[in-house]
Amino acid sequence: MTTEQTAKDFVALLKEGKHEEAANRFNADDIASYENMPGPMAVCHGREAVRQKGEWWVAGHEVHDFSSEGPYLNGDQYAVRFHFDVTVKETGERRVMDEVGLYTVRNGKVVEERFFY
Amino acid sequence: MTTEQTAKDFVALLKEGKHEEAANRFNADDIASYENMPGPMAVCHGREAVRQKGEWWVAGHEVHDFSSEGPYLNGDQYAVRFHFDVTVKETGERRVMDEVGLYTVRNGKVVEERFFY
Repeated sequence: MTTEQTAKDFVALLKEGKHEEAANRFNADDIASYENMPGPMAVCHGREAVRQKGEWWVAGHEVHDFSSEGPYLNGDQYAVRFHFDVTVKETGERRVMDEVGLYTVRNGKVVEERFFY
Repeated sequence: MTTEQTAKDFVALLKEGKHEEAANRFNADDIASYENMPGPMAVCHGREAVRQKGEWWVAGHEVHDFSSEGPYLNGDQYAVRFHFDVTVKETGERRVMDEVGLYTVRNGKVVEERFFY
């Protein structure tokens, strides 16, 4: 599977709101995930750690809106643009944010994801 | 200068339409630039080659609209979202496109730029 096809199938799932399915189908066993934040979630290694980070995020936010645009391609990488509107449950803070995700593909699997905000 | 300050100053210039000034001020002498296209413009090395690529692009397009959003940060990199509406002079084709630029910073200078579309 080419990077372009991986990217298109991945983003098609995101656009349907199927984030877990996209991760299950495309994350490599040894995926590395990088957030722009301090603390234990800054870097995750492996499918299971990334799955847990996803659960932690979902549990901590009330999602009012979440949309994905892309993919945008170059070589073995693709970018996705995200827009979301959430309430952080712990603080009650409403956050409307744009974000960019950068995905690196090897053999049809995502071996790295890196989020910019 | 931190990556965050570099990113903010860079994007502030883009938002004013000052692309050349942003490149002059922030591109490292040994910058590498990657496009998602075949041919001689796919990879450029050095400030002068990148400047010539910019001139080549400007000469080949009539720009109806060009906007920049960001920056979006992570570590020593930042992403910028672009939207543009151009006519390709050679073919007369009108192109409305979104694009993501990814910039890598070292010592307050951009050492790599990579464009996704």
